[in-house]
Amino acid sequence: MKKIAVILSGCGNKDGAEIQETVSLIIALSQLGAEVTYFAPNKEFQAKNFLTNQAHHEKRNVMAESARITRSQMKDLATLNARDFDALAMPGGYGAAINLSNWAEKGAKCDVIPDLEKAIKEFHRQSKPIGAICIAPAIVARVLGAHKITVTIGNDKETSSEIEKTGALHEDCPVMDYITDRHHKVITTPAYMYNAKPHEVFHGIMGLAKELVEMA
Amino acid sequence: MKKIAVILSGCGNKDGAEIQETVSLIIALSQLGAEVTYFAPNKEFQAKNFLTNQAHHEKRNVMAESARITRSQMKDLATLNARDFDALAMPGGYGAAINLSNWAEKGAKCDVIPDLEKAIKEFHRQSKPIGAICIAPAIVARVLGAHKITVTIGNDKETSSEIEKTGALHEDCPVMDYITDRHHKVITTPAYMYNAKPHEVFHGIMGLAKELVEMA
Repeated sequence: MKKIAVILSGCGNKDGAEIQETVSLIIALSQLGAEVTYFAPNKEFQAKNFLTNQAHHEKRNVMAESARITRSQMKDLATLNARDFDALAMPGGYGAAINLSNWAEKGAKCDVIPDLEKAIKEFHRQSKPIGAICIAPAIVARVLGAHKITVTIGNDKETSSEIEKTGALHEDCPVMDYITDRHHKVITTPAYMYNAKPHEVFHGIMGLAKELVEMA
Repeated sequence: MKKIAVILSGCGNKDGAEIQETVSLIIALSQLGAEVTYFAPNKEFQAKNFLTNQAHHEKRNVMAESARITRSQMKDLATLNARDFDALAMPGGYGAAINLSNWAEKGAKCDVIPDLEKAIKEFHRQSKPIGAICIAPAIVARVLGAHKITVTIGNDKETSSEIEKTGALHEDCPVMDYITDRHHKVITTPAYMYNAKPHEVFHGIMGLAKELVEMA
């Protein structure tokens, strides 16, 4: 049974992990018989009201909110050890750009939180596959760009040109497909980088998950 | 294109809508080409930390939290008119038992919030199908029990005997299947009433969604 570490960044596309992408990944990995362990950083973040876009008064915790999606299964990202797993996967959502990094503010020059940067480098160094969805490939590009990995975030020119500043290569990809960098074992799919339908996002992520589990 | 109203009760199985069930339903209805509109009650609720189970200080709003799952698509349940739709569907989660009703406290004698009670009665009166997942069939039973509808919540004896106190009939059902009351057009599947795997829950909900859209 392949052991997959999944890293979340909260609960909801505007300030955390994109929920439909995350559950698509969870269903796909379950269907494939993988054993999944969930991780998120134990830190506070600024949550917003999804109807008014206003900031909530009370700060929320990335681990605790991420645990809403996973029925309370959640480990501190600080405890993730690549040796214990066969592959790594990350859904998208704005949380990747504000809670796992500051990509939203600094783009290709962003800082990735140290525990995640370490995890991505270790999985890559151990030649274990990394799957990234939606905007999450930008984070992988920031960490592994110097290795000239190939990723996709769909066909958004502004984001793809920012990604190429990291040294990574970008290939356009439709929502129901995914891109595999076989040399570096990096698999990416655009999902809600498009204004897509839920079953299209599910289809693209199912493809990514199959490739990830096969390569693991 | 069939128009489906989906009613949510928050975001997360412990104090709102069960997220994996909700997204399974969203993917299934998208796959089937249905047009989905999301509703939730515009009211505050007591949210809890999913890791510590402690109450959060700041109250949260059911509509705003539900909107995390749906990428901000959300209407006030008070505006739902059965005439505008072909079918109704509700995922489970503890939110159904605390935010849409007080089933958690009062069981078969619970009060269902008036907007939801009215919606269930209207869809039934107009002979439009109602799909309910996990614990949500208990709410439908509370409203339509006098009509002797048949539902399932799996095989939990305590809950099913409580449901039968409403006048409804209960049939045991495995997680990957669903029960159809063809006369009353009520379709139910147990989902996370079992300690099930995500793809099993998805399979049961896909079956329910197909039946719902065909009957609509």
